[in-house]
Amino acid sequence: MSFRASVITLFPDLFPGPLGASVIGRGMEKGAWSLETHFLRDYAGDKHRTVDDTPSGGGAGMVLRSDILAAALDDVAPNGDPRPKILMSPRGAPLTQQRVRELAQGPGAVVVCGRFEGIDQRVIDARNLEEISIGDYVLAGGEVAAMVLLEAVVRLLPGVLGAAESHADESFENGLLEYPHYTRPQSFEGRDIPEILTSGDHGRIEKWRREQSEALTRQRRPDLWELYTQKS
Amino acid sequence: MSFRASVITLFPDLFPGPLGASVIGRGMEKGAWSLETHFLRDYAGDKHRTVDDTPSGGGAGMVLRSDILAAALDDVAPNGDPRPKILMSPRGAPLTQQRVRELAQGPGAVVVCGRFEGIDQRVIDARNLEEISIGDYVLAGGEVAAMVLLEAVVRLLPGVLGAAESHADESFENGLLEYPHYTRPQSFEGRDIPEILTSGDHGRIEKWRREQSEALTRQRRPDLWELYTQKS
Repeated sequence: MSFRASVITLFPDLFPGPLGASVIGRGMEKGAWSLETHFLRDYAGDKHRTVDDTPSGGGAGMVLRSDILAAALDDVAPNGDPRPKILMSPRGAPLTQQRVRELAQGPGAVVVCGRFEGIDQRVIDARNLEEISIGDYVLAGGEVAAMVLLEAVVRLLPGVLGAAESHADESFENGLLEYPHYTRPQSFEGRDIPEILTSGDHGRIEKWRREQSEALTRQRRPDLWELYTQKS
Repeated sequence: MSFRASVITLFPDLFPGPLGASVIGRGMEKGAWSLETHFLRDYAGDKHRTVDDTPSGGGAGMVLRSDILAAALDDVAPNGDPRPKILMSPRGAPLTQQRVRELAQGPGAVVVCGRFEGIDQRVIDARNLEEISIGDYVLAGGEVAAMVLLEAVVRLLPGVLGAAESHADESFENGLLEYPHYTRPQSFEGRDIPEILTSGDHGRIEKWRREQSEALTRQRRPDLWELYTQKS
Protein backbone atom coordinates (compact mmCIF):
# COMPACT_ATOMS: atom_id res chain seq x y z
CA MET A 1 0.00 0.00 0.00
CA SER A 2 1.44 3.33 -0.98
CA PHE A 3 0.92 6.61 0.88
CA ARG A 4 -2.61 7.91 0.29
CA ALA A 5 -3.33 11.63 0.63
CA SER A 6 -6.89 13.02 0.63
CA VAL A 7 -7.33 16.78 0.62
CA ILE A 8 -10.61 18.53 1.57
CA THR A 9 -10.68 22.05 0.15
CA LEU A 10 -12.73 24.88 -1.29
CA PHE A 11 -10.16 25.20 -4.10
CA PRO A 12 -9.75 21.71 -5.59
CA ASP A 13 -8.39 23.15 -8.85
CA LEU A 14 -5.18 24.17 -7.07
CA PHE A 15 -4.22 20.49 -6.75
CA PRO A 16 -1.96 18.79 -7.63
CA GLY A 17 -0.29 22.09 -8.69
CA PRO A 18 3.27 22.03 -7.33
CA LEU A 19 2.66 18.47 -6.06
CA GLY A 20 2.42 17.32 -9.68
CA ALA A 21 5.89 18.66 -10.59
CA SER A 22 9.45 17.45 -10.28
CA VAL A 23 10.34 14.51 -8.02
CA ILE A 24 7.04 14.77 -6.12
CA GLY A 25 4.99 14.49 -9.33
CA ARG A 26 7.19 11.67 -10.65
CA GLY A 27 6.68 9.88 -7.33
CA MET A 28 2.94 10.01 -7.96
CA GLU A 29 3.38 8.66 -11.50
CA LYS A 30 5.50 5.81 -10.13
CA GLY A 31 2.80 4.96 -7.58
CA ALA A 32 4.80 5.91 -4.49
CA TRP A 33 1.82 8.00 -3.38
CA SER A 34 -1.65 9.04 -4.51
CA LEU A 35 -3.67 12.22 -4.14
CA GLU A 36 -7.46 12.64 -4.07
CA THR A 37 -9.03 16.08 -3.83
CA HIS A 38 -12.51 16.59 -2.37
CA PHE A 39 -14.54 19.75 -2.92
CA LEU A 40 -16.06 20.88 0.36
CA ARG A 41 -19.06 22.51 -1.34
CA ASP A 42 -20.17 19.06 -2.53
CA TYR A 43 -21.17 18.41 1.09
CA ALA A 44 -23.34 21.51 1.49
CA GLY A 45 -27.09 20.91 1.72
CA ASP A 46 -28.56 24.00 0.07
CA LYS A 47 -28.68 25.01 -3.56
CA HIS A 48 -26.18 27.84 -3.00
CA ARG A 49 -23.74 25.27 -1.59
CA THR A 50 -23.15 27.41 1.49
CA VAL A 51 -20.45 26.04 3.82
CA ASP A 52 -20.02 28.96 6.24
CA ASP A 53 -22.02 31.18 8.56
CA THR A 54 -21.42 34.23 10.78
CA PRO A 55 -19.40 33.73 14.01
CA SER A 56 -21.38 33.16 17.22
CA GLY A 57 -20.70 36.07 19.54
CA GLY A 58 -19.94 38.43 16.66
CA GLY A 59 -16.71 39.45 14.98
CA ALA A 60 -15.19 39.70 11.52
CA GLY A 61 -15.29 37.06 8.81
CA MET A 62 -17.14 33.81 8.44
CA VAL A 63 -16.80 30.42 10.14
CA LEU A 64 -16.82 27.04 8.41
CA ARG A 65 -19.76 24.95 9.64
CA SER A 66 -19.12 21.87 11.75
CA ASP A 67 -21.87 19.73 10.20
CA ILE A 68 -20.63 20.23 6.64
CA LEU A 69 -16.98 19.52 7.37
CA ALA A 70 -18.03 16.48 9.44
CA ALA A 71 -20.02 15.13 6.47
CA ALA A 72 -16.97 15.55 4.23
CA LEU A 73 -14.63 13.88 6.72
CA ASP A 74 -17.00 10.96 7.30
CA ASP A 75 -17.26 10.38 3.56
CA VAL A 76 -13.53 10.73 2.81
CA ALA A 77 -12.33 8.80 5.86
CA PRO A 78 -15.07 6.50 7.19
CA ASN A 79 -14.72 4.71 10.53
CA GLY A 80 -11.68 2.48 10.49
CA ASP A 81 -9.63 4.60 8.12
CA PRO A 82 -6.25 4.51 9.85
CA ARG A 83 -4.97 7.81 8.45
CA PRO A 84 -4.49 10.84 10.70
CA LYS A 85 -6.96 13.66 10.06
CA ILE A 86 -5.02 16.90 9.90
CA LEU A 87 -6.27 20.48 9.91
CA MET A 88 -3.81 23.06 8.58
CA SER A 89 -4.10 25.96 11.04
CA PRO A 90 -1.83 28.64 12.53
CA ARG A 91 -3.19 27.54 15.94
CA GLY A 92 -1.71 24.08 15.50
CA ALA A 93 1.47 22.39 16.65
CA PRO A 94 4.43 23.62 14.58
CA LEU A 95 5.36 21.13 11.87
CA THR A 96 8.76 19.53 12.46
CA GLN A 97 10.91 17.18 10.40
CA GLN A 98 10.27 14.59 13.13
CA ARG A 99 6.48 14.73 12.51
CA VAL A 100 7.13 14.67 8.75
CA ARG A 101 9.14 11.43 9.16
CA GLU A 102 6.38 9.85 11.26
CA LEU A 103 3.73 10.72 8.68
CA ALA A 104 5.91 9.30 5.88
CA GLN A 105 5.99 5.96 7.72
CA GLY A 106 2.19 5.86 7.99
CA PRO A 107 -0.62 4.95 5.57
CA GLY A 108 -1.32 8.50 4.41
CA ALA A 109 -3.15 11.59 5.60
CA VAL A 110 -6.52 13.31 5.33
CA VAL A 111 -5.77 17.02 5.11
CA VAL A 112 -8.35 19.75 5.68
CA CYS A 113 -7.51 23.16 4.25
CA GLY A 114 -8.94 25.93 6.43
CA ARG A 115 -10.41 29.08 4.89
CA PHE A 116 -12.43 32.01 6.23
CA GLU A 117 -11.90 33.32 9.75
CA GLY A 118 -11.82 29.80 11.16
CA ILE A 119 -13.53 26.44 11.58
CA ASP A 120 -16.20 25.56 14.12
CA GLN A 121 -14.36 24.16 17.14
CA ARG A 122 -16.88 21.34 17.63
CA VAL A 123 -15.89 19.45 14.48
CA ILE A 124 -12.21 19.79 15.44
CA ASP A 125 -13.08 18.17 18.79
CA ALA A 126 -15.63 15.62 17.55
CA ARG A 127 -13.46 14.28 14.72
CA ASN A 128 -10.24 14.59 16.69
CA LEU A 129 -8.50 16.71 14.07
CA GLU A 130 -4.74 17.15 14.53
CA GLU A 131 -4.06 20.86 14.07
CA ILE A 132 -0.71 21.48 12.38
CA SER A 133 0.88 24.86 11.67
CA ILE A 134 3.63 25.22 9.07
CA GLY A 135 4.96 28.36 10.77
CA ASP A 136 4.22 31.49 12.80
CA TYR A 137 2.55 33.53 10.09
CA VAL A 138 -0.94 33.74 8.61
CA LEU A 139 -1.97 32.58 5.11
CA ALA A 140 -5.12 33.25 3.11
CA GLY A 141 -6.05 29.57 3.36
CA GLY A 142 -4.73 26.12 4.10
CA GLU A 143 -4.12 24.99 0.52
CA VAL A 144 -0.47 26.07 0.23
CA ALA A 145 0.13 24.80 3.77
CA ALA A 146 -1.24 21.39 2.72
CA MET A 147 1.16 21.42 -0.24
CA VAL A 148 4.07 22.15 2.11
CA LEU A 149 3.08 19.27 4.40
CA LEU A 150 2.60 16.78 1.57
CA GLU A 151 5.77 17.81 -0.31
CA ALA A 152 7.85 17.38 2.85
CA VAL A 153 6.33 13.95 3.53
CA VAL A 154 6.30 12.59 -0.02
CA ARG A 155 9.99 13.31 -0.66
CA LEU A 156 10.80 10.88 2.18
CA LEU A 157 8.74 8.02 0.72
CA PRO A 158 10.71 5.07 -0.68
CA GLY A 159 11.56 5.50 -4.36
CA VAL A 160 10.79 9.22 -4.57
CA LEU A 161 14.28 10.71 -4.32
CA GLY A 162 17.12 8.94 -6.13
CA ALA A 163 19.88 7.23 -4.18
CA ALA A 164 22.19 10.13 -5.09
CA GLU A 165 20.00 12.54 -3.18
CA SER A 166 20.68 11.47 0.36
CA HIS A 167 18.81 12.87 3.35
CA ALA A 168 21.62 12.30 5.81
CA ASP A 169 23.31 15.72 5.71
CA GLU A 170 20.19 17.82 5.41
CA SER A 171 19.16 20.58 7.76
CA PHE A 172 17.31 19.18 10.83
CA GLU A 173 18.24 15.53 10.14
CA ASN A 174 21.06 15.73 12.73
CA GLY A 175 19.68 18.69 14.65
CA LEU A 176 21.94 21.18 12.81
CA LEU A 177 21.56 23.51 9.86
CA GLU A 178 23.35 22.33 6.75
CA TYR A 179 26.95 23.41 6.01
CA PRO A 180 27.67 25.77 3.06
CA HIS A 181 27.98 24.34 -0.45
CA TYR A 182 30.41 25.23 -3.23
CA THR A 183 30.85 24.12 -6.83
CA ARG A 184 32.69 25.25 -9.93
CA PRO A 185 33.82 27.75 -11.11
CA GLN A 186 36.85 27.71 -8.80
CA SER A 187 36.85 31.50 -8.66
CA PHE A 188 33.70 33.65 -8.66
CA GLU A 189 34.14 37.42 -8.61
CA GLY A 190 37.42 37.00 -6.74
CA ARG A 191 35.94 34.57 -4.22
CA ASP A 192 37.59 31.12 -4.25
CA ILE A 193 36.22 27.79 -3.12
CA PRO A 194 37.63 27.16 0.41
CA GLU A 195 40.96 25.34 -0.10
CA ILE A 196 40.11 22.48 2.20
CA LEU A 197 37.27 21.36 -0.10
CA THR A 198 39.69 20.77 -2.99
CA SER A 199 42.33 19.09 -0.77
CA GLY A 200 41.00 15.57 -1.31
CA ASP A 201 41.36 14.91 2.44
CA HIS A 202 37.95 13.50 3.25
CA GLY A 203 38.49 13.36 6.99
CA ARG A 204 39.38 17.04 7.16
CA ILE A 205 36.50 17.95 4.80
CA GLU A 206 34.02 16.14 7.03
CA LYS A 207 35.38 17.84 10.13
CA TRP A 208 35.25 21.28 8.44
CA ARG A 209 31.65 20.74 7.34
CA ARG A 210 30.63 19.69 10.83
CA GLU A 211 32.25 22.77 12.30
CA GLN A 212 30.53 25.00 9.74
CA SER A 213 27.16 23.40 10.53
CA GLU A 214 27.69 23.89 14.23
CA ALA A 215 28.82 27.53 13.86
CA LEU A 216 25.89 28.38 11.60
CA THR A 217 23.36 26.74 13.92
CA ARG A 218 24.82 28.47 16.99
CA GLN A 219 24.70 31.84 15.24
CA ARG A 220 21.35 31.65 13.47
CA ARG A 221 19.30 29.30 15.59
CA PRO A 222 20.21 29.43 19.27
CA ASP A 223 16.98 27.48 19.93
CA LEU A 224 18.12 24.50 17.82
CA TRP A 225 21.67 24.80 19.18
CA GLU A 226 20.43 24.49 22.75
CA LEU A 227 18.49 21.30 21.91
CA TYR A 228 21.52 19.93 20.06
CA THR A 229 23.98 20.52 22.90
CA GLN A 230 21.53 19.02 25.43
CA LYS A 231 21.42 15.81 23.40
CA SER A 232 25.17 15.53 22.81
CA MET B 1 3.64 51.79 -6.89
CA SER B 2 2.19 48.43 -5.97
CA PHE B 3 4.12 45.49 -4.46
CA ARG B 4 6.30 43.86 -7.12
CA ALA B 5 7.32 40.21 -6.73
CA SER B 6 9.95 38.59 -8.98
CA VAL B 7 10.54 34.87 -8.62
CA ILE B 8 13.65 33.08 -9.95
CA THR B 9 12.95 29.36 -10.36
CA LEU B 10 13.62 26.18 -12.30
CA PHE B 11 9.85 25.56 -12.40
CA PRO B 12 8.27 28.76 -13.76
CA ASP B 13 5.13 26.87 -14.82
CA LEU B 14 4.16 26.42 -11.16
CA PHE B 15 3.44 30.15 -10.91
CA PRO B 16 1.10 31.83 -10.24
CA GLY B 17 -0.60 28.52 -9.23
CA PRO B 18 -2.19 29.09 -5.82
CA LEU B 19 -1.12 32.76 -5.98
CA GLY B 20 -3.58 33.23 -8.85
CA ALA B 21 -6.57 32.00 -6.84
CA SER B 22 -9.00 33.50 -4.34
CA VAL B 23 -8.26 36.84 -2.68
CA ILE B 24 -4.56 36.70 -3.62
CA GLY B 25 -5.35 36.27 -7.32
CA ARG B 26 -8.06 38.95 -7.19
CA GLY B 27 -5.50 41.26 -5.56
CA MET B 28 -3.27 40.76 -8.59
CA GLU B 29 -6.15 41.50 -10.98
CA LYS B 30 -6.93 44.68 -9.05
CA GLY B 31 -3.29 45.77 -9.32
CA ALA B 32 -2.47 45.53 -5.59
CA TRP B 33 0.58 43.46 -6.54
CA SER B 34 2.33 41.99 -9.58
CA LEU B 35 4.26 38.78 -10.18
CA GLU B 36 7.05 38.11 -12.70
CA THR B 37 8.58 34.66 -13.02
CA HIS B 38 12.12 34.16 -14.34
CA PHE B 39 13.40 30.81 -15.59
CA LEU B 40 16.86 30.17 -14.19
CA ARG B 41 17.92 28.05 -17.18
CA ASP B 42 17.62 31.16 -19.38
CA TYR B 43 20.83 32.35 -17.68
CA ALA B 44 22.87 29.21 -18.38
CA GLY B 45 25.63 29.58 -20.94
CA ASP B 46 25.76 26.14 -22.59
CA LYS B 47 23.38 24.52 -24.98
CA HIS B 48 22.20 22.01 -22.37
CA ARG B 49 21.26 24.97 -20.15
CA THR B 50 23.15 23.47 -17.21
CA VAL B 51 22.75 25.39 -13.97
CA ASP B 52 24.34 22.99 -11.47
CA ASP B 53 27.57 21.07 -10.85
CA THR B 54 28.91 18.51 -8.37
CA PRO B 55 29.70 19.69 -4.81
CA SER B 56 33.31 20.68 -4.07
CA GLY B 57 34.66 18.26 -1.48
CA GLY B 58 32.27 15.51 -2.54
CA GLY B 59 28.88 14.43 -1.25
CA ALA B 60 25.39 13.72 -2.52
CA GLY B 61 23.39 15.81 -4.96
CA MET B 62 24.23 18.82 -7.07
CA VAL B 63 24.92 22.46 -6.25
CA LEU B 64 23.46 25.47 -8.05
CA ARG B 65 26.27 27.54 -9.61
CA SER B 66 27.06 30.99 -8.25
CA ASP B 67 27.78 32.61 -11.63
CA ILE B 68 24.45 31.58 -13.14
CA LEU B 69 22.31 32.67 -10.20
CA ALA B 70 24.29 35.94 -10.03
CA ALA B 71 23.52 36.60 -13.72
CA ALA B 72 19.83 36.00 -13.09
CA LEU B 73 19.77 38.26 -10.01
CA ASP B 74 21.66 41.06 -11.78
CA ASP B 75 19.18 40.94 -14.65
CA VAL B 76 16.04 40.74 -12.51
CA ALA B 77 17.18 43.26 -9.88
CA PRO B 78 19.89 45.57 -11.28
CA ASN B 79 21.85 47.93 -9.04
CA GLY B 80 19.50 50.34 -7.34
CA ASP B 81 16.54 47.97 -7.18
CA PRO B 82 15.34 48.61 -3.61
CA ARG B 83 13.67 45.23 -3.13
CA PRO B 84 15.13 42.69 -0.69
CA LYS B 85 16.65 39.62 -2.37
CA ILE B 86 15.37 36.55 -0.56
CA LEU B 87 16.53 32.93 -0.79
CA MET B 88 14.04 30.35 0.45
CA SER B 89 16.18 27.92 2.46
CA PRO B 90 15.81 25.71 5.55
CA ARG B 91 19.07 27.29 6.79
CA GLY B 92 17.47 30.73 6.91
CA ALA B 93 15.89 32.80 9.62
CA PRO B 94 12.41 31.45 10.47
CA LEU B 95 9.68 33.49 8.81
CA THR B 96 7.55 35.42 11.30
CA GLN B 97 4.41 37.52 10.96
CA GLN B 98 6.60 40.48 11.94
CA ARG B 99 8.87 39.98 8.89
CA VAL B 100 5.77 39.43 6.74
CA ARG B 101 4.40 42.81 7.86
CA GLU B 102 7.72 44.53 7.11
CA LEU B 103 7.85 43.04 3.62
CA ALA B 104 4.25 44.10 2.96
CA GLN B 105 5.24 47.70 3.71
CA GLY B 106 8.13 47.57 1.22
CA PRO B 107 8.36 47.86 -2.57
CA GLY B 108 8.31 44.11 -3.24
CA ALA B 109 10.66 41.14 -3.16
CA VAL B 110 12.99 39.17 -5.40
CA VAL B 111 12.57 35.54 -4.38
CA VAL B 112 15.02 32.76 -5.31
CA CYS B 113 13.65 29.22 -5.12
CA GLY B 114 16.40 26.78 -4.11
CA ARG B 115 16.62 23.32 -5.66
CA PHE B 116 19.20 20.53 -5.62
CA GLU B 117 21.37 19.90 -2.57
CA GLY B 118 22.03 23.62 -2.18
CA ILE B 119 23.30 26.88 -3.65
CA ASP B 120 26.92 27.98 -3.93
CA GLN B 121 27.62 30.02 -0.79
CA ARG B 122 29.55 32.68 -2.71
CA VAL B 123 26.51 34.06 -4.53
CA ILE B 124 24.59 34.16 -1.24
CA ASP B 125 27.42 36.28 0.20
CA ALA B 126 28.18 38.37 -2.90
CA ARG B 127 24.56 39.34 -3.56
CA ASN B 128 23.67 39.63 0.11
CA LEU B 129 20.76 37.21 -0.13
CA GLU B 130 18.44 37.13 2.89
CA GLU B 131 17.90 33.45 3.70
CA ILE B 132 14.37 32.80 4.99
CA SER B 133 12.99 29.47 6.19
CA ILE B 134 9.25 28.86 6.37
CA GLY B 135 9.71 26.14 9.02
CA ASP B 136 11.90 23.40 10.48
CA TYR B 137 11.32 20.79 7.79
CA VAL B 138 12.79 20.07 4.36
CA LEU B 139 11.00 20.54 1.02
CA ALA B 140 11.90 19.30 -2.46
CA GLY B 141 12.47 22.88 -3.59
CA GLY B 142 11.80 26.49 -2.76
CA GLU B 143 8.78 27.02 -4.99
CA VAL B 144 6.05 26.18 -2.48
CA ALA B 145 8.01 28.09 0.17
CA ALA B 146 8.01 31.16 -2.11
CA MET B 147 4.23 30.78 -2.48
CA VAL B 148 3.86 30.68 1.31
CA LEU B 149 5.94 33.84 1.71
CA LEU B 150 4.13 35.74 -1.03
CA GLU B 151 0.64 34.64 0.06
CA ALA B 152 1.34 35.77 3.63
CA VAL B 153 2.64 39.15 2.42
CA VAL B 154 0.07 39.85 -0.29
CA ARG B 155 -2.94 39.31 1.97
CA LEU B 156 -1.71 42.24 4.07
CA LEU B 157 -1.47 44.65 1.13
CA PRO B 158 -4.07 47.44 1.02
CA GLY B 159 -7.21 46.43 -0.87
CA VAL B 160 -6.55 42.69 -0.90
CA LEU B 161 -8.76 41.54 1.98
CA GLY B 162 -12.16 43.17 2.37
CA ALA B 163 -12.91 45.38 5.36
CA ALA B 164 -14.97 42.56 6.86
CA GLU B 165 -11.90 40.35 7.08
CA SER B 166 -9.99 42.07 9.83
CA HIS B 167 -6.46 41.10 10.86
CA ALA B 168 -6.78 42.28 14.43
CA ASP B 169 -7.80 39.02 16.13
CA GLU B 170 -5.64 36.66 14.11
CA SER B 171 -3.06 34.32 15.50
CA PHE B 172 0.30 36.10 16.09
CA GLU B 173 -1.11 39.62 15.62
CA ASN B 174 -1.28 40.10 19.40
CA GLY B 175 1.27 37.41 20.30
CA LEU B 176 -1.44 34.83 21.04
CA LEU B 177 -3.08 31.97 19.14
CA GLU B 178 -6.62 32.71 18.04
CA TYR B 179 -9.61 31.79 20.22
CA PRO B 180 -12.00 29.01 19.10
CA HIS B 181 -14.78 29.81 16.63
CA TYR B 182 -18.37 28.64 16.56
CA THR B 183 -21.28 29.10 14.17
CA ARG B 184 -24.70 27.59 13.50
CA PRO B 185 -26.14 25.02 13.92
CA GLN B 186 -26.70 25.69 17.62
CA SER B 187 -26.33 22.00 18.38
CA PHE B 188 -23.94 19.65 16.58
CA GLU B 189 -23.94 15.99 17.59
CA GLY B 190 -25.01 16.97 21.09
CA ARG B 191 -22.36 19.69 21.38
CA ASP B 192 -23.80 23.18 21.90
CA ILE B 193 -22.26 26.55 21.14
CA PRO B 194 -20.88 27.90 24.47
CA GLU B 195 -23.72 29.83 26.12
CA ILE B 196 -21.71 32.97 26.61
CA LEU B 197 -21.39 33.48 22.84
CA THR B 198 -25.16 33.72 22.45
CA SER B 199 -25.60 35.94 25.54
CA GLY B 200 -25.31 39.20 23.62
CA ASP B 201 -22.98 40.56 26.35
CA HIS B 202 -20.07 41.82 24.27
CA GLY B 203 -17.87 42.67 27.23
CA ARG B 204 -18.12 39.12 28.59
CA ILE B 205 -17.65 37.63 25.13
CA GLU B 206 -14.47 39.63 24.59
CA LYS B 207 -13.13 38.58 28.01
CA TRP B 208 -13.95 34.91 27.34
CA ARG B 209 -12.22 34.99 23.95
CA ARG B 210 -9.14 36.57 25.49
CA GLU B 211 -9.02 33.89 28.19
CA GLN B 212 -9.44 31.14 25.59
CA SER B 213 -6.60 32.61 23.51
CA GLU B 214 -4.35 32.81 26.54
CA ALA B 215 -5.15 29.28 27.71
CA LEU B 216 -4.58 27.83 24.23
CA THR B 217 -1.28 29.65 23.79
CA ARG B 218 -0.03 28.60 27.23
CA GLN B 219 -0.93 24.97 26.54
CA ARG B 220 0.19 24.59 22.92
CA ARG B 221 2.96 27.13 22.55
CA PRO B 222 4.89 27.72 25.76
CA ASP B 223 7.51 29.53 23.62
CA LEU B 224 5.01 32.16 22.44
CA TRP B 225 3.46 32.35 25.90
CA GLU B 226 6.81 33.21 27.45
CA LEU B 227 7.37 36.04 24.95
CA TYR B 228 3.82 37.28 25.55
CA THR B 229 4.12 37.38 29.33
CA GLN B 230 7.51 39.12 29.13
CA LYS B 231 5.92 41.90 27.07
CA SER B 232 2.83 42.37 29.25
